[in-house]
Amino acid sequence: MTASLDALSVPALLARVEAIFRKGGLNAVQAGALSRVIVAGERDACKSHGIYRIEGALRTVKAGKVQADAVPELMPDDGSTILRVNAKGGFANPAFELGLPHLAERARRLGIAALVINDCTHFSALWPEVEAVAAHGLAALALCPSYATVAPTGGKEPLLGTNPLAFGWPRRDAEPYVFDFATSVAARGEIELKRRAGETLPEGWALDAAGQPTRDPEAALAGAMLTFGGHKGSAISTMIELLAGIMIGDLTSLESLRQLGSTNLSPSHGELILAFSPERFAAGREGDPFARAETLFEAIVGQGARLPSQRRFAARAVSERDGITLSSSERAQLDRLEAEGLDAVAL
Amino acid sequence: MTASLDALSVPALLARVEAIFRKGGLNAVQAGALSRVIVAGERDACKSHGIYRIEGALRTVKAGKVQADAVPELMPDDGSTILRVNAKGGFANPAFELGLPHLAERARRLGIAALVINDCTHFSALWPEVEAVAAHGLAALALCPSYATVAPTGGKEPLLGTNPLAFGWPRRDAEPYVFDFATSVAARGEIELKRRAGETLPEGWALDAAGQPTRDPEAALAGAMLTFGGHKGSAISTMIELLAGIMIGDLTSLESLRQLGSTNLSPSHGELILAFSPERFAAGREGDPFARAETLFEAIVGQGARLPSQRRFAARAVSERDGITLSSSERAQLDRLEAEGLDAVAL
Repeated sequence: MTASLDALSVPALLARVEAIFRKGGLNAVQAGALSRVIVAGERDACKSHGIYRIEGALRTVKAGKVQADAVPELMPDDGSTILRVNAKGGFANPAFELGLPHLAERARRLGIAALVINDCTHFSALWPEVEAVAAHGLAALALCPSYATVAPTGGKEPLLGTNPLAFGWPRRDAEPYVFDFATSVAARGEIELKRRAGETLPEGWALDAAGQPTRDPEAALAGAMLTFGGHKGSAISTMIELLAGIMIGDLTSLESLRQLGSTNLSPSHGELILAFSPERFAAGREGDPFARAETLFEAIVGQGARLPSQRRFAARAVSERDGITLSSSERAQLDRLEAEGLDAVAL
Repeated sequence: MTASLDALSVPALLARVEAIFRKGGLNAVQAGALSRVIVAGERDACKSHGIYRIEGALRTVKAGKVQADAVPELMPDDGSTILRVNAKGGFANPAFELGLPHLAERARRLGIAALVINDCTHFSALWPEVEAVAAHGLAALALCPSYATVAPTGGKEPLLGTNPLAFGWPRRDAEPYVFDFATSVAARGEIELKRRAGETLPEGWALDAAGQPTRDPEAALAGAMLTFGGHKGSAISTMIELLAGIMIGDLTSLESLRQLGSTNLSPSHGELILAFSPERFAAGREGDPFARAETLFEAIVGQGARLPSQRRFAARAVSERDGITLSSSERAQLDRLEAEGLDAVAL
């Protein structure tokens, strides 16, 4: 199949997005890392984390809530499992890129290592990060708070964030096993879409401002979302506040919302990424862990279930072969952002 | 309040249970560790992990599926984050007790450490273990497979186990923040209770042997359970197979079921316990992580939600003050087990 005339190759889209961020005042490390993660979303047909996110990132810059010229700094290394990068008030993504090779080396040496990112603005999915760790032959777990929009089970008010949890397992001859999901039952954007479509919400999604269950999207947006899986999801979300907020010396979702004062900008907090070396963990035991994992995956697929992220990987293959096709309004939006920079976004 | 005449003190019940296990042929390390974890369950009014479990443990001994005289062995230490105890075919509990001080020391030194237990028979809850790690001032995450009784989302057949996940966070002036739950939507025992009571199951609990959704407990027991939280719980359960089965060089839930050939005995597999030092992780950052966690817990409780495990802790306080009251049939059962040992249990 030949590429559509309207399709942009992945590198061409990357160059365009990077130019937009440079025009918006981001320095090279910020613009580069943001472009890579946004184009990865668009490439994987993960539209909610694709070029749609450019405007929100620029709005956060314009509001003065993120340092567009931040240069992340690797903090002094004490030889422990903890590698620490201070994002210096910039986005999380360049901080992750700076820390990744150190994280991988340390995990290979010690079996486990942790990358702590502090003082960052966060707006992207976590799957690009667990995939990047898995590319080093390591398993990865990534977690972070968000801003308070979710009530704990049995509670009434926003306290927890949508607090995503992502995991990656490396595969030798396939894309990694990867999942990445919010610990809220739905994303805030899904409730907004239901509101625009005039639909009611499924039961169990949200509470109204008085803390009562509601199926009205408008009331839900003024109230609180709920966690997935009832009290179990609520417990996992609380664990994420503890480990990836409080333990790493960074903001909880409630503190982040108070600092930001809005749910329309990207929140500031930290992030925790754990890397595990299956080779170190399996050493001296029977069987190759990567081959055994394939047997598990075959058993899942063999009974008709799916592995997570397969739709993304299929879209990725198409994008890499045929390029990425944008709608005319998306193309017009990129043109405007590239021409006008921060003037193109309203606060 | 004075103790009931029929109440046993916690140490007195511990001595009785230990005597039963010794009579059943367990050596001192196996009998001691098993008694401690079973009496902890009974003390916390967690009946499903209390003295009710004695008979199942003895049945597994009688079936020759666990080494009653095993002495767990700390494997050679390579100075990494990975501490490894081989349970030598015995129960997981004495292996955990052997590894715990090493795990705590290593986590304090390196920020994170992992205790891998291999070649163990597992039958107890995970909360005693995360509580024991938290007593060292460390956060803990414990996970293990089980035997295959749960289908992955979109699948038809048992492949995953009930795969529990437990977490603990140490608190200075209170019992730790602890959760411990199966990643299946319900425990197998709950389905069995519904069957005995002639009740139907809630939707979403189980599939029948043909892989179709069922609300009939009998059909569910012949089929497969489902995970909590739909595809998200299924992904977490799969992660547990990968990290706490395959990565540590031990059995998956499917392999464990095949080896055991029964769901009426305790399964053999491994276990993974991670310990984190909040002091190391928060070093150099503003705020004390333990004090900040209290603020989070107050916000949860302040809006009417509960912290997990509070019912257990309340029962514990009562048991420690008033002793543990057993029913007459429970007392008779203890008498019989103590008198007859393995002859009292049927395979």
